Amino acid sequence: MAFDGSGGDLSGGPYVELVAIGDELLLGEVADANGAWIASRLAEAGIRVARTTAVGDDLDAIRDAVRSALDRTGVVICTGGLGPTRDDVTRPAVAGLFGRRLHLDEAVLSRIRTHFEEWGLPMPPNARRQAEVPEGARILPNRRGTAPGLVLEDGPTRAAILLPGVPSEAHTIIEDHVLDYLERRWPDRSRPVRHLRLRTTGIPESALAQQVESLAETIEPLTLAFLPSPTGVDLRLSAWATLEPDEADARLEAAARALEDRLGPYVYGRNDEDLAAVLGAELARRGRSIAVAESCTAGLIAKRITDVAGSSRYFLAGIVAYANDAKERLLGVRRATLVDHGAVSAETAREMAEGVRRAAGSDYGLSVTGIAGPGGGSPRKPVGTVWIGFAAEPGSEAELFRFTGDRGEVRERAAQAALMMAWLRIRKEHG
Amino acid sequence: MAFDGSGGDLSGGPYVELVAIGDELLLGEVADANGAWIASRLAEAGIRVARTTAVGDDLDAIRDAVRSALDRTGVVICTGGLGPTRDDVTRPAVAGLFGRRLHLDEAVLSRIRTHFEEWGLPMPPNARRQAEVPEGARILPNRRGTAPGLVLEDGPTRAAILLPGVPSEAHTIIEDHVLDYLERRWPDRSRPVRHLRLRTTGIPESALAQQVESLAETIEPLTLAFLPSPTGVDLRLSAWATLEPDEADARLEAAARALEDRLGPYVYGRNDEDLAAVLGAELARRGRSIAVAESCTAGLIAKRITDVAGSSRYFLAGIVAYANDAKERLLGVRRATLVDHGAVSAETAREMAEGVRRAAGSDYGLSVTGIAGPGGGSPRKPVGTVWIGFAAEPGSEAELFRFTGDRGEVRERAAQAALMMAWLRIRKEHG
Repeated sequence: MAFDGSGGDLSGGPYVELVAIGDELLLGEVADANGAWIASRLAEAGIRVARTTAVGDDLDAIRDAVRSALDRTGVVICTGGLGPTRDDVTRPAVAGLFGRRLHLDEAVLSRIRTHFEEWGLPMPPNARRQAEVPEGARILPNRRGTAPGLVLEDGPTRAAILLPGVPSEAHTIIEDHVLDYLERRWPDRSRPVRHLRLRTTGIPESALAQQVESLAETIEPLTLAFLPSPTGVDLRLSAWATLEPDEADARLEAAARALEDRLGPYVYGRNDEDLAAVLGAELARRGRSIAVAESCTAGLIAKRITDVAGSSRYFLAGIVAYANDAKERLLGVRRATLVDHGAVSAETAREMAEGVRRAAGSDYGLSVTGIAGPGGGSPRKPVGTVWIGFAAEPGSEAELFRFTGDRGEVRERAAQAALMMAWLRIRKEHG
Repeated sequence: MAFDGSGGDLSGGPYVELVAIGDELLLGEVADANGAWIASRLAEAGIRVARTTAVGDDLDAIRDAVRSALDRTGVVICTGGLGPTRDDVTRPAVAGLFGRRLHLDEAVLSRIRTHFEEWGLPMPPNARRQAEVPEGARILPNRRGTAPGLVLEDGPTRAAILLPGVPSEAHTIIEDHVLDYLERRWPDRSRPVRHLRLRTTGIPESALAQQVESLAETIEPLTLAFLPSPTGVDLRLSAWATLEPDEADARLEAAARALEDRLGPYVYGRNDEDLAAVLGAELARRGRSIAVAESCTAGLIAKRITDVAGSSRYFLAGIVAYANDAKERLLGVRRATLVDHGAVSAETAREMAEGVRRAAGSDYGLSVTGIAGPGGGSPRKPVGTVWIGFAAEPGSEAELFRFTGDRGEVRERAAQAALMMAWLRIRKEHG
């Protein structure tokens, strides 16, 4: 959803296409883990993905998809189908398209041997197949695995880049070799369209749209798009290639500030900032520590906080008190509170936050207790009912939320809301 | 990777193609969350996805992709681009391709109004656009949101099914309407190719391949494929449409048992079984309870155990003791142990497992302490060094692991290894 009709974000090539190869993709057994990463990495370098296609391990389908992609954009990046077994047919399929034969490359074979030696494993006979490369192909060494990347060129305008499907290997070869190759291919490419994303949580897309609608016109020629996810909505501001870079940056900054002013407590960060990292930075800056007590989110908040490298500076401990007995034993929640008000109540949330703060000896305590479903709901406390508690030196408080979605979504949303509540309270405390 | 050259898994249509629409997909801002789910759901119903394509919010690109897909398979499912703003152009693009105009559908408009009333929000003016549907389109009601699904047909052989891009909405409309529509379209479709997946962890793909290589020939005409992921490798057995269903099932079962015999302690389940659910079922069956103490995995194991609905029957508590002080305070790890052996040691892992078992009053205690990176490694204890502890009535033990990968992968692998260790120990204890 965007407030513009300017033809979309795909102006300003150069363009490549992606072709993901593997029956498992079409059977839905795995989702393509490469496309979004590659597209995002190329966009940073000013190179756009015009289309992505996924086909099975089938010679004709691969040839057809690669040929069409080459006809449209001239450059295609294929992932998958470079493994050692007979159903890995990307190499012969694309070699055929370029009129090349496969031959055994001794240097590649020797690198594969070295890999197996380093792993302390005998080299299986079929690993040799990965050393059979199309004649005249450029070899892109793979530090993470056995199958090298390959580049086939047909004159100055057409190139197919073949990469293994394993994401860590594909991404490493792109960083090591492919970006450099593409940047040299298009030295005169126009500067990338510039983006700035504001990250919000706690406000639905429709309400957000209403709040910012009147601003959208004032920020032209910038455009504004909404990117919803289960834990919040990102606002993406885009500056187009018609603007000079300095002016684009200045306008993006001004528009972002105007949006932040209007949306106040719903905006927690920019671009790729994660809410747990934003909270962590706030704690680190203040020299304060936190501990969390979780019931329905059951470790998710602790996991998110500690997904941030360096979180040991401010994260002391987490207690997952799933059973009522554990809430008493580990957090000191009073039995009377549980009996009188229930495990999902303001009182229990507050005692959990106070209890974990006391047990861990932290500056702040954060707690979540709620009903993630599918069972456990009642007319008074339906699935999605969640109390979030926060404890600090002056005392504790609790806030009620009602989240929609399945068990996983309720938990994701509750964790996000808890992190946001902690961040807002800590900022407020320090003015 | 598969041990066969039989032409891949895509024999036996009928076929559809998927077209995902949205600039955000090509910018890599979000990954397509629909393709794998839809493909998997259709495969269960005996309908195969032949190809998937992602294009931007661009009239020409959408038309070109949908036209090509219709030419190949006759039926295409589009996701995305049905929102209320001007850059949502899937409706006009596909209507144009089928030679239809858009008109306002009062019934659709009234349902959209009702949705906003239920949410307690005023209906924004642009929401009307979602009620503009192609003439003659079949409407597929959307219980989860405002944009209905649409079916456009051109004679008996060509159909385009348009769905919103929000996964929960797309999936609900597929379950409610699309499966039924497709099944009636192909009543005589051949029975699905049958699959059976064995789930393994703790053994690399290459070692797995060597162990089962000699079996692969004896199971023909079944075929065997390897599906690696960061937490393990699945073995997929496939029976082809040439076999009668009963014979296919019997052969799959026999082959699965032969593989399970050979791979012993590496196999934890079949098909979609999750290791945390397998462990949970074992605990529930025995009437036993568990508690976990986590350092580097920091809540991930608790989250995985409680991702399983009903886990409150056997999961009592989790303690995330990130700081050494928390290990002492919350788990009773002795300071001397931490000083003499370090936080990442067999002794600390054992005391953590014993401590959480004691604190929670559970039958079993499971613990993880290690170095997830990026910092904190040393020559003697490099990043990826993880001790896993397990405590039960007779006492405790600990096992050393060295995981590769980045911070996230080390944590995922450590959590998986801990769940596997607990499951194997509990099974062994009960014979």
